Amino acid sequence: MLYPNNIKKNYNKEISYKNRGMDLEYLIEKANIFYRDNDIAYIFKKPTPIKVVNVEYKNGGKRITDAFYETPSTLDFNGIYKGNYIEFDAKETNNKTSFPLRNVHDHQIKHIKNVYNHKGIVFLIIMMNNKYFLFPGSKFLEFLEKETRQSIPYNYIEENSYELKVTLKGLDYISKLDELIGGK
Amino acid sequence: MLYPNNIKKNYNKEISYKNRGMDLEYLIEKANIFYRDNDIAYIFKKPTPIKVVNVEYKNGGKRITDAFYETPSTLDFNGIYKGNYIEFDAKETNNKTSFPLRNVHDHQIKHIKNVYNHKGIVFLIIMMNNKYFLFPGSKFLEFLEKETRQSIPYNYIEENSYELKVTLKGLDYISKLDELIGGK
Repeated sequence: MLYPNNIKKNYNKEISYKNRGMDLEYLIEKANIFYRDNDIAYIFKKPTPIKVVNVEYKNGGKRITDAFYETPSTLDFNGIYKGNYIEFDAKETNNKTSFPLRNVHDHQIKHIKNVYNHKGIVFLIIMMNNKYFLFPGSKFLEFLEKETRQSIPYNYIEENSYELKVTLKGLDYISKLDELIGGK
Repeated sequence: MLYPNNIKKNYNKEISYKNRGMDLEYLIEKANIFYRDNDIAYIFKKPTPIKVVNVEYKNGGKRITDAFYETPSTLDFNGIYKGNYIEFDAKETNNKTSFPLRNVHDHQIKHIKNVYNHKGIVFLIIMMNNKYFLFPGSKFLEFLEKETRQSIPYNYIEENSYELKVTLKGLDYISKLDELIGGK
C-alpha cells in the first residue's frame, strides 16, 4: 500500500479545512491573542457545540466514546471591547460576484437580530475576492428586510463594510470597531 | 445480579449531579429562557469545552469516537443585558460557614479579573445555606487581594452580595443587575 488509509484521510482533511476558512479563522485568532495580551479587547472563539451520546468511566475519569458536532445556532466569536458586547462570525466564499446566504444558518440570522436588538455589536467578517470585510449586522439585516434574493451582491458588501487589513498581528478588526460602535 | 452495573452507575451519576449544582443551573437556565423570550436579556450557557481526540467518517457524516471534557478556563454563562457584556458562573457549596476557593479554578480567577478590567459585568451566583447570592466579581477580587485564606467567610459573602429570589420564572438575577451596573 503506497498510501495507507489514515494518511490519505488526514491529507484530505487538511485541504478541506483550508478551503473552508481555516486561514481566516487563524488570522482572527492571531489578532484575538494580540488583543488579549495587550489588554485591547477580550474576545474568544466559543467552544464548538458537541452533543455527547455516550460517556465511559475509565481510571476514575470520564471519556466520551460517542458524540457528534451540532449545527451552531450562535456566532463563533464573542467577548468584550470597552465594556461593549461583541459577537461575530467568519465567513468565506469563492464566489466573486455575490455572497450566498446559505453560508449563514437560519438560527444564526435570528441570533444576529437578537444581539443587535439587545445593543450588542454584531457583524460578519467576510473574505471574498482576496479582501477582508467587516460587514455590520445592521447592514446584513437591512439587506434581508429589503431583498428576497438568496445572495448578497459583492458591491453591496463592499459599499457597506469596513475593509480590514492583515498585519503581522493577524487580521486587525478592532481598529474599525470605534467607528462601528459610534454609528450602531 | 440485583443491580446491574450500568443502572447503579446512572443512579450515582444522578445523585452526584444534584449535589454539584444541577438544580442551581436549572433555575438559572429557566430564568435565561424567560429573559430571552421576553427580550429582557440575551444570555446563554456556553457549550462545554471538549477536546476531540478521534473522529470517524460514517455515512457521509462525522462521528466523534474519542474525546474528553476540558477544565473550563472561562465562566459558564455569558451574554448581553442592555448592551453590557455579562459573564458569570454558578457555584454551590454544602459548607455552611465559608465558600472554599477551590471551587473557582485559577484560570477562572484570571478570567474574572480580565472581564472586570475590560468593563464587563462579572459575578458568581453562589448557593449556600439554602440562599442564593449574586456575588460581584469586584468583591471577589477585593477579597483575593486582601486575604490569603483558602475560603471566603459566609458573612463576607452575605454582606457583599445581592440576595436572589427563586420565582416561577426561575432564579431572578436580572433585577439586581441595574444596581450592579450603576456601582461597578
